[in-house]
Amino acid sequence: MFDFTVTARNNRARTGIFTTCHGELQTPVFAPVGTQATVKMLTPEQLKDINASLVLSNTYHLYLRPGDELVSDMGGLHKFMQWSGPILTDSGGFQVFSLAQTRKIDEDGVTFKSHIDGSTHRFTPEKSIGIQENLGADIIMAFDECSDPNDHNYTRRAMDRTHRWAERSVRAKTRADQALFGIVQGGVNPEMRAESAEFIASLDTSGIAIGGLSVGETKDEMHAMLDIVVPLLPEDKPRYLMGVGTPEDLINGVRRGIDIFDCVLPTRLARHHSAFAPEGRLNLMNASFARDARPIDETCDCYTCRTFTRAYIRHLIVANELLAGTLVSIHNLRALIRLMEELRGYIAGGTFEEQVPGLLARWGNNAKRNSSR
Amino acid sequence: MFDFTVTARNNRARTGIFTTCHGELQTPVFAPVGTQATVKMLTPEQLKDINASLVLSNTYHLYLRPGDELVSDMGGLHKFMQWSGPILTDSGGFQVFSLAQTRKIDEDGVTFKSHIDGSTHRFTPEKSIGIQENLGADIIMAFDECSDPNDHNYTRRAMDRTHRWAERSVRAKTRADQALFGIVQGGVNPEMRAESAEFIASLDTSGIAIGGLSVGETKDEMHAMLDIVVPLLPEDKPRYLMGVGTPEDLINGVRRGIDIFDCVLPTRLARHHSAFAPEGRLNLMNASFARDARPIDETCDCYTCRTFTRAYIRHLIVANELLAGTLVSIHNLRALIRLMEELRGYIAGGTFEEQVPGLLARWGNNAKRNSSR
Repeated sequence: MFDFTVTARNNRARTGIFTTCHGELQTPVFAPVGTQATVKMLTPEQLKDINASLVLSNTYHLYLRPGDELVSDMGGLHKFMQWSGPILTDSGGFQVFSLAQTRKIDEDGVTFKSHIDGSTHRFTPEKSIGIQENLGADIIMAFDECSDPNDHNYTRRAMDRTHRWAERSVRAKTRADQALFGIVQGGVNPEMRAESAEFIASLDTSGIAIGGLSVGETKDEMHAMLDIVVPLLPEDKPRYLMGVGTPEDLINGVRRGIDIFDCVLPTRLARHHSAFAPEGRLNLMNASFARDARPIDETCDCYTCRTFTRAYIRHLIVANELLAGTLVSIHNLRALIRLMEELRGYIAGGTFEEQVPGLLARWGNNAKRNSSR
Repeated sequence: MFDFTVTARNNRARTGIFTTCHGELQTPVFAPVGTQATVKMLTPEQLKDINASLVLSNTYHLYLRPGDELVSDMGGLHKFMQWSGPILTDSGGFQVFSLAQTRKIDEDGVTFKSHIDGSTHRFTPEKSIGIQENLGADIIMAFDECSDPNDHNYTRRAMDRTHRWAERSVRAKTRADQALFGIVQGGVNPEMRAESAEFIASLDTSGIAIGGLSVGETKDEMHAMLDIVVPLLPEDKPRYLMGVGTPEDLINGVRRGIDIFDCVLPTRLARHHSAFAPEGRLNLMNASFARDARPIDETCDCYTCRTFTRAYIRHLIVANELLAGTLVSIHNLRALIRLMEELRGYIAGGTFEEQVPGLLARWGNNAKRNSSR
């Protein structure tokens, strides 16, 4: 169980197979985010149809609603949300530190108030692992503290505490059918990132996550941190870059040896009418699409692009029809999943590095809204 | 084209096959409503999956947004919304009379203000037919005036005008691939209903609609009007009871010789968390469902009931996840479509009349919210 086999390499980029109790993951992989036990506006059938393999869900949200004990009583998260493939849960740390209005951190854990009803709750490493064991995902995360990267002293304190919490998370884990990942922190400080990578790599975990990036630092800083961290990690464990990202970020991450990604971006953009397209990100509400008989992306194989015109999707958006969110979510997720399939093909074929400039030129457009629209 | 063949009879109840350019309709049939060229929150694939055959769309809404000329330029409504089966459009009359804040009726037509932007528009019988020809549905409606059933003199004036407008609608029609239905009016007045039925039956149309019911009259009044109107209609034309209804209404309508129904009820209820179930209409937000591992309806064959628990759907509702609306819409529509399949089977087997008391007892529950919940 949790065997990770690297099947091909191009410099640091690699393909692999990560074996879980709910099937094999082909890496590099992009995981759609299903915060509240649902990838917003999509059925599990629609997720399967776009070849999604790994789905992420959020411990903080599910703990508050419907409650991890209820999920456990209903047979666990796979059965509850009817996703038969692998699931990953985060530790709740990131949400507690970023979502909760008031929170108090001490050595043992964090006390915070619910964003739903203001009630007081407490997470510790042991509590986070206990919740994640109730939820029953295939991949679970050590409880960590994500610090402000601009505060050097706080970053040091948070990182040291994250290391102690990672050790406690490893000790707290009881289920053999869940793969625990430790989380590398250290802000944008090269020495701290290296120290954190070495510490987390030394623990008895099935994989390693890199946290605290994509939280306000520059792209160059993110790449610099990956260039420091990845070479210090073992080859035989999957590497997960948390909360990343844009198509460009995925290409740059794979190039630097990352195996797993997740991000709310494709579904959040979709709900705001923004679609990944060859000519750049499209605002489908724009009047220029009113009579556009093309699909969002003529090269895309998703249900939305096989079936509907931009004109129809624009009509749905203008008419406030929720189906628009479903259709654009299907496309945006498929676009990133298809990108990962394409990258895996290049790595397996040994042509990844030579494809990177073209890929970045093609997808760099999609970092922001197409200015011509 | 537009051949209607009655295939079995039980007293007034009957099964039939209505042939359109987009396939055969097995009647009696319930049509989901796709007001703005989309059955709210469902893909055409999901509609096919619940065995929907006829879909209704609204002329008033599509005329205003995206515009019937745009729909025509995009290849017509079937291609625009990607529904390859039969489509029915109403005449816009009902919406103009009920939705528009200010409207002025004269002999020639109706001037009204858009509910979207307050702009002034005018519908005449010729205009309504022209819009419906641009949209390109298989079944189109004569332009009619739906009066307040409590105002005898207005009902008479509106009915007489509806008859003149029906004659103008027949003359205005140019497309051979569309079946035009005239609309019987006359409020809840037996003499006027009979007069209207005879007049509309005398016109050269492919079918006959019964309008102005389910607009505030009692169930007994609706049944009395159907008992007067239906025997005056030709046997060889399909009969469409507009805007009806509840499961109970469908059973009572089929019993009185109706072939086609449509109603927003199943999808509107679904968006308000209300589901058809054997024990009565369920408010799925209720805390009693928090750990209910059963599907909405154990006897139902829809994707929602085959896949998800009440507990999961309740979680989605409580967490404001839009997927709940999609899942409950699938179930509620399938429940009515399955009811019609069941009724067709009883009529074909000659047991319809003996099944009616049991059907009404089973479905009478669903006329209103289950009081025990």
